[in-house]
Amino acid sequence: MQIESVDFFYLSMPEVLDIGDGSQDMLLVRVQAGEYVGWGECEASPLTSIASFVAPMSHSACKPVRDSVLGQRLDGVDDICRIGDAVRANSLDLLQADHTLSGIDIALWDLLGKRFEEPVWRLLGAERAHPKLPYASQLFGETPEETGARAVATREAGYRAAKFGWGPFGLGSIADDIAHIEAAREGLGPEIALMIDVGTVWRDDVARAASVLPTLERCGVIWLEEPFVTGAFSAYRDLAARATTVKMAGGEGCHNAWQARHLIDHAGIGYVQIDTGRIGGITPSAEVAAYARARGVTYVNHTFTSHLALSASLQPFAGSEADVICEYPVAPKALAHDVTTTHIERDADGFVHVPEAPGLGVTLDLDAARHYLVEAEIRVGGKVLYQTPELRGA
Amino acid sequence: MQIESVDFFYLSMPEVLDIGDGSQDMLLVRVQAGEYVGWGECEASPLTSIASFVAPMSHSACKPVRDSVLGQRLDGVDDICRIGDAVRANSLDLLQADHTLSGIDIALWDLLGKRFEEPVWRLLGAERAHPKLPYASQLFGETPEETGARAVATREAGYRAAKFGWGPFGLGSIADDIAHIEAAREGLGPEIALMIDVGTVWRDDVARAASVLPTLERCGVIWLEEPFVTGAFSAYRDLAARATTVKMAGGEGCHNAWQARHLIDHAGIGYVQIDTGRIGGITPSAEVAAYARARGVTYVNHTFTSHLALSASLQPFAGSEADVICEYPVAPKALAHDVTTTHIERDADGFVHVPEAPGLGVTLDLDAARHYLVEAEIRVGGKVLYQTPELRGA
Repeated sequence: MQIESVDFFYLSMPEVLDIGDGSQDMLLVRVQAGEYVGWGECEASPLTSIASFVAPMSHSACKPVRDSVLGQRLDGVDDICRIGDAVRANSLDLLQADHTLSGIDIALWDLLGKRFEEPVWRLLGAERAHPKLPYASQLFGETPEETGARAVATREAGYRAAKFGWGPFGLGSIADDIAHIEAAREGLGPEIALMIDVGTVWRDDVARAASVLPTLERCGVIWLEEPFVTGAFSAYRDLAARATTVKMAGGEGCHNAWQARHLIDHAGIGYVQIDTGRIGGITPSAEVAAYARARGVTYVNHTFTSHLALSASLQPFAGSEADVICEYPVAPKALAHDVTTTHIERDADGFVHVPEAPGLGVTLDLDAARHYLVEAEIRVGGKVLYQTPELRGA
Repeated sequence: MQIESVDFFYLSMPEVLDIGDGSQDMLLVRVQAGEYVGWGECEASPLTSIASFVAPMSHSACKPVRDSVLGQRLDGVDDICRIGDAVRANSLDLLQADHTLSGIDIALWDLLGKRFEEPVWRLLGAERAHPKLPYASQLFGETPEETGARAVATREAGYRAAKFGWGPFGLGSIADDIAHIEAAREGLGPEIALMIDVGTVWRDDVARAASVLPTLERCGVIWLEEPFVTGAFSAYRDLAARATTVKMAGGEGCHNAWQARHLIDHAGIGYVQIDTGRIGGITPSAEVAAYARARGVTYVNHTFTSHLALSASLQPFAGSEADVICEYPVAPKALAHDVTTTHIERDADGFVHVPEAPGLGVTLDLDAARHYLVEAEIRVGGKVLYQTPELRGA
């Protein structure tokens, strides 16, 4: 087969709010090869990723992403790896390319899975897909009371693990942070696993982070996520050395497998969190999962958007029984829900199951998606380089 | 003062060739605050960077770059740092943002220099600007003979240092590579410093790289640049350990100061090469220069485009007497030459001098630049988000 078309669809909620909720827009990718169609999703900034796909070449190592994808042979898994390597080489100096490649790589895996009538995780070499324990991923409330109320709701919804992040946390006083953590633990009760996500707001301030460590450990927090920006390896290491039970988590900002390796090798993290929609897709994610496993670091997906993205993000560690926790968007915007008819729901024990159907095992609802479609057009030198294509199955 | 406007101008040669020559297009940035105008340049993929400046917000940490720049206070150097930090936080998940910020940061320094009637290097705290020894930066020939002829021409042009890179090097046989290195050394004669740039084509293949090490050392090559992709720290370290005289060089792909620090801390490089047009501008470049100096690593600019970019790239280490070598584009395309009336020429001893005039000390030739202007337009949801502005001084 040859890759005949790669199309991008920019979907958005009618209003995008200035909050840390990544489910407010999405960039859907459709790839066609032979008689097959695969779907993927890029995270984030749809317009910028579209531009990187169609931008005129700047030089031999700064080509638009499409130059390394369109017309390529696609007969097996090796072809996906080869195409990813080509994008990374030919778009070496095009920074956005890794995010753009992510959705394409995901769609290629979906397409091949459909062709070979196998779920992606089996194409990745897993014998079975182990159930994952989803944690309810949500924002802190504006006040500790609101955080507490959300924690109670999470417990009542039957979750066995929960993560609170962003919102006002880390931006105010240490006392505020402590109150939010305590409210979360109190609302959840003693049994539910609790994680805290700082969203990098402490940059590289180890002392600021260390001041909430005793509360984190007293409240039995499993991981402290992104206390610092991705690059602050020594800050991560220093904080990890001061902690006794809580482990550091990070990695969602990685846009290639090397960066995730560096966090594992040099930042002392205990959990590596990978967004398949940013790191370059399922291929480098699976590479990181194997690397982490060999070094005693737990792999976790980073997912805050649709169940298409959720399925894609579970594939790289579906075959790993030890990596049991998974992120699960608990209150996505309507767009992220409506875009698929397939929803990966929790079973009676609170676990989710990676789809067994071919490819990603997720069916899109294109009629619903069309309501969110944003018309975009890019012209350069009088030529139309991008125009929103018709959103249909093939 | 307040930042009143930030405008992007996409300039390009009429034809962009599929060669490793980064001077074929450019993204010029004009910033206006009060009665002052500053200019900067982003490297590379003009359309993608423009899109990242105007893209609709995806969520609170994925805002368009303009949201953190337009209307901001600009009274001193601290404001430039604050604006850069804001872009990195508010556009955390917008990968292209660092490249876009680069040209803006450069323009902000240029503008403040004009306002305070000081060259940028003085605003950066340097007492004087030390002359730099430019190396002629050029592509390998298609054959060793062609490489040799270029080396002869470089010697005859009076350069005291030369770097050959890209072209066919590293892609063919080991014997081909050896022939190219020997031809370069033979053409230059014994006195001229020689550097070799592999352009990442060996990815992380240490054995492949090691096979040319003896030739590199026999031919007195000072540094081996980017034998591997930026992330391949252990490959860099392993090769550095096998070398006796040649040092590893890398860093042009860094898009923030952290990544450059990691190369210094974990990859065993002897030269850190920073492109102010990619790393986020002059501010993080200066941070890296200080970090490198404290660790015995030599700072070198990466510049392959205009003399606006060249001046910007020299500022961060102008004040450092020890960091004497600088990259100097020897055969840029007409666009890169024509866009400025100021050219930073070599003196009789072969050195270049960072301009003493306010700001970057570089005057643009807007009439000439206009001939290269590419008309672009970006529309989203029926609204025009970008349209090529009029190219004038203010």
